[in-house]
Amino acid sequence: MARELENSLLNQHKEKHFTAGEIVRDIIIGVSDGLTVPFALAAGLSGANASSAVILTAGVAEVAAGAISMGLGGYLAAKSEADHYMRELKREQEEIIAVPDTEAAEVAEILSEYGIQPHEYTPVVNALRKNPKAWLDFMMKFELGLEKPDPKRALQSALTIAIAYIVGGLVPLLPYFFIPTATKAVAASVVLTLMALLVFGYAKGHFTGNKPFRSALQTALIGAAASAAAFGMAKAVQG
Amino acid sequence: MARELENSLLNQHKEKHFTAGEIVRDIIIGVSDGLTVPFALAAGLSGANASSAVILTAGVAEVAAGAISMGLGGYLAAKSEADHYMRELKREQEEIIAVPDTEAAEVAEILSEYGIQPHEYTPVVNALRKNPKAWLDFMMKFELGLEKPDPKRALQSALTIAIAYIVGGLVPLLPYFFIPTATKAVAASVVLTLMALLVFGYAKGHFTGNKPFRSALQTALIGAAASAAAFGMAKAVQG
Repeated sequence: MARELENSLLNQHKEKHFTAGEIVRDIIIGVSDGLTVPFALAAGLSGANASSAVILTAGVAEVAAGAISMGLGGYLAAKSEADHYMRELKREQEEIIAVPDTEAAEVAEILSEYGIQPHEYTPVVNALRKNPKAWLDFMMKFELGLEKPDPKRALQSALTIAIAYIVGGLVPLLPYFFIPTATKAVAASVVLTLMALLVFGYAKGHFTGNKPFRSALQTALIGAAASAAAFGMAKAVQG
Repeated sequence: MARELENSLLNQHKEKHFTAGEIVRDIIIGVSDGLTVPFALAAGLSGANASSAVILTAGVAEVAAGAISMGLGGYLAAKSEADHYMRELKREQEEIIAVPDTEAAEVAEILSEYGIQPHEYTPVVNALRKNPKAWLDFMMKFELGLEKPDPKRALQSALTIAIAYIVGGLVPLLPYFFIPTATKAVAASVVLTLMALLVFGYAKGHFTGNKPFRSALQTALIGAAASAAAFGMAKAVQG
């Protein structure tokens, strides 16, 4: 009971070190790109005198493509990381059985990097040798730096990023749904998206423990830079 | 001398565990999205009867916007991770000075998770207590799981991803530069991009240690899914 309380207190202490969970990270990834690229694409196309209809077609197509690319791509990447973990786990397990002296030397190497002397680390090495499961966990974490992936995470991450991208992407496109004249729609889109970028950038800074105002400005700046580039390239292709 | 050789052998042994460097990872990230989204956007727009000129304008604008979003976004994310590391380093340093008993208890906690008994880990804890620099490194790595970021990496990563995205994105757009009739250009784009996706997917599998043929098929499948979604959404908006 006391140990559980102690564990819980230590875990809470560790968690205070981290200010953004993995889901928040995925939302940030999705919304960051979703707010920026469709906005820039729409702004660039309006600069090239496209109609709201064309801009909407391109914008919605891009949001769909981007959501799938990021979502499905992220899902497969997470799955392949999980496969990688299992392969490394299997290899490490074989090494512990086949070449335990080499593995024990690796533990010694790891600990000696922290100025720990042989007479100090040898009891630890021997303790691990007698406990193959713990030894395996130790090697996975301290030699390879790999954490056991949660099987649910791949799908969860993919859906979060894809939905975040769609939500982010629809914000700059909304005006084009309602305002047929592209030049008017783009003005509304710029205002709407700029506000969204500043608010989102602020939230991003808050959740990642970075200065929120600076984060807001940086996020808006990326949006501005991306749309300037899109605008410039669209003009270059047209002219 | 013998120790350096031993270090070198152990490092090589560790490196064999990893089959993709960080630069390769950034190239994979950039080319994956670059091959997929501009291709899908162009295919979707051609399905909505846009001309090659419009498709090119949209495509090039999207590549510019995407490269900036990913590149600049990636750069700022890497910088903020570096800031996060420095903040955690500072906090950990303060804790080692202010509450050494709590920090020592954390080391004990970490080692006891591997079945190591107090009489076995206490010499290690005491050795760390006498060596504050090593203790700090130990806490950063084993409690927080943070690696010291290379200051060059942020810029290097951003440029790699942005350039990879541009190179990836130009592949499906090339036919539209030369073939004015969109329906003909899209056929060439599909063939060109499908080949590029398969080759790239194969290479990706090879470098990440995953089955290359399966990776090739998955990569092509994402491209197909993204363009189907873009095609469908473009038709939906048009009709």
